[in-house]
Amino acid sequence: MKRLGVMLLVAASSVVLVACGSNGVGSNIGSSKTQLTGNGSGSNYQSLIKDGHYQVSKSSGVDQSQTSNTFNLQGFQRGLQNISKKEFSPDKYIFQEGQYISTDTTYNWLGRKTKDNPEGLNPYQPNKKIVPEYLQQIDEQDYLQQEGGKMKLKGMTIGIGLNSVYYYTKEKYGAQYSKHLTDADIEANGKEIANKVLARMRQNKDTKNIPIVIALYKAAPDDSLVGGNFIASSVNKAGEKEVGSWSKIDEKNYVLPVASGEKVPNANDEAAFNEFKNKTQGFFPNLSGITAQAHYTDGSLSAMTINVTTQFYSYTEINSFTQYLQNAAQKYLPTGTPIEIQVGSTNGVQSYLYRGKNDKKFSAHVFTNY
Amino acid sequence: MKRLGVMLLVAASSVVLVACGSNGVGSNIGSSKTQLTGNGSGSNYQSLIKDGHYQVSKSSGVDQSQTSNTFNLQGFQRGLQNISKKEFSPDKYIFQEGQYISTDTTYNWLGRKTKDNPEGLNPYQPNKKIVPEYLQQIDEQDYLQQEGGKMKLKGMTIGIGLNSVYYYTKEKYGAQYSKHLTDADIEANGKEIANKVLARMRQNKDTKNIPIVIALYKAAPDDSLVGGNFIASSVNKAGEKEVGSWSKIDEKNYVLPVASGEKVPNANDEAAFNEFKNKTQGFFPNLSGITAQAHYTDGSLSAMTINVTTQFYSYTEINSFTQYLQNAAQKYLPTGTPIEIQVGSTNGVQSYLYRGKNDKKFSAHVFTNY
Repeated sequence: MKRLGVMLLVAASSVVLVACGSNGVGSNIGSSKTQLTGNGSGSNYQSLIKDGHYQVSKSSGVDQSQTSNTFNLQGFQRGLQNISKKEFSPDKYIFQEGQYISTDTTYNWLGRKTKDNPEGLNPYQPNKKIVPEYLQQIDEQDYLQQEGGKMKLKGMTIGIGLNSVYYYTKEKYGAQYSKHLTDADIEANGKEIANKVLARMRQNKDTKNIPIVIALYKAAPDDSLVGGNFIASSVNKAGEKEVGSWSKIDEKNYVLPVASGEKVPNANDEAAFNEFKNKTQGFFPNLSGITAQAHYTDGSLSAMTINVTTQFYSYTEINSFTQYLQNAAQKYLPTGTPIEIQVGSTNGVQSYLYRGKNDKKFSAHVFTNY
Repeated sequence: MKRLGVMLLVAASSVVLVACGSNGVGSNIGSSKTQLTGNGSGSNYQSLIKDGHYQVSKSSGVDQSQTSNTFNLQGFQRGLQNISKKEFSPDKYIFQEGQYISTDTTYNWLGRKTKDNPEGLNPYQPNKKIVPEYLQQIDEQDYLQQEGGKMKLKGMTIGIGLNSVYYYTKEKYGAQYSKHLTDADIEANGKEIANKVLARMRQNKDTKNIPIVIALYKAAPDDSLVGGNFIASSVNKAGEKEVGSWSKIDEKNYVLPVASGEKVPNANDEAAFNEFKNKTQGFFPNLSGITAQAHYTDGSLSAMTINVTTQFYSYTEINSFTQYLQNAAQKYLPTGTPIEIQVGSTNGVQSYLYRGKNDKKFSAHVFTNY
């Protein structure tokens, strides 16, 4: 038996939030009515608490009702915040959920253009014709800075979520049909919508003279086991009413193990995952499944979330299994990329493991009930 | 706005497992057929993998069918492993799920004593009389050491799980009745059962001459929101056929906020939790509930698990909320005790926070899907 040592885990990952400073909660800034959620950690935004309440997004309820695939919803919002970080650094800006595009406006914009809804950003549909809707969801994110003792809007990011499949029925409560939309059509329509949105934002005095980042997101189909991906973004300086130039974004999500006929950009990642999966399933009985979501950026694996479903009930089994996973993940899975592993059973999540991009080892936590 | 810094999290908790060494998975010990789940971390056992498979407990399926409150099941197994650590140090022993009390034997022992089942450890029940069953579950844990190139059984822990409420029906499929059992009766019956179990283990040549720890667990009622607690343990040296002496165990679990009329041993802990709960619910809308399980040992808070249920869907909301919680938990919750916070929604767990007993700060993780 090898002699075993104990090591301290030095976690320095961007996802592990660490609080510092002594008066994090409710530290007043400027007026006594505005506070922050906490102290920023360099890679994560602090958020605004106004008049004692966290400000929820005005469009957030609308997004939920439009988007049936929650991977699309979460990935869209998270990705949009990541895109924002390039222009509005978390060190210098405070995050606030979108407060300028109202709930009603969001509904109107997401609707079709009709006599009753001239603002609709989806196309008019003549009777008995099928005209696809491209716009699926809109998300606004506000970025603030302190000025003259007050928090002021200094930047904004708007996400335009686009359908990749248009779902429709021919009659009310009738069978659902679907039409796949081409990448070229999605991009062209998204850019057209972005220009209209930008022009409209410039008519509001609050948003007339701030930089506005706009990003296009191509949603995954409703039945997809991964969310969609951003395809382009643009930075629009204060006052600009039309998007000058777009930057292409190259990212995509894959499910592992891949369906037959499909493949991920790097076959080594797939082989590594399969090795991990096969070894684990060989050693432990009662595993219902091991699947992964692999996120690729510019053709390279940039993050992975693995879901392990067990039929275990025993605490000691979960504990031993988690210990095994910690070593197997270290041995077989690709390095240099953040990897999260969730171990769940019918009773919910049982344990989780995580290794950040720059971490050497996986840390693990077994959830405890008393 | 305060200037904010970034800190590294140095996690050195007993629950955070850290892998070390280079050949953790499947490092052979002795014969090529036995392997370990990983490298021990001082406070956590390594477990045995035999002939390429993790050995599940022979009694584990039986326990599941007997115990309708999963808090009882998990707390029983985890607590039993903790009790074992005092006698069989994780540095020196390898853990194995119970392999010596067979599934059939477990069923027989848990049954009533009848002509057909002379081994039953629950009392005989004459026709039309109600005689409570005290024994609810049995868990065996094996502790091994290497000897002569082989892993050998060197110690065992047996948990005796006892009902605190006896549930019964007067006729098949009839209404359920319940009878509360007194602490004195539970303890007396538990000790009697322990003596019988110990005597039987000594009839088996494998377990005749090893130390056997026996611990008594008083299960919580089926509808309890916390599990039960251990009440006594005994260390029985090799060959001893009767329990010589019992050590009292003083531990109890409480739900926070407490039901009216109840109280926890330390009112400060309750006040701290209530402050945390009220501040959080004031700041954030859409919170369905904040409850805690508080574990007390020798009258002092020794661990706490907090469950926060949200109606959030938005990634940015979960992210901001988790950041807020990290600071609020640090500010309001009791120090010097491990605290785990799970943030869940109808879509499952969204984020989690943890501060170990000796950690200075809470670490946090927002679960990510792609």
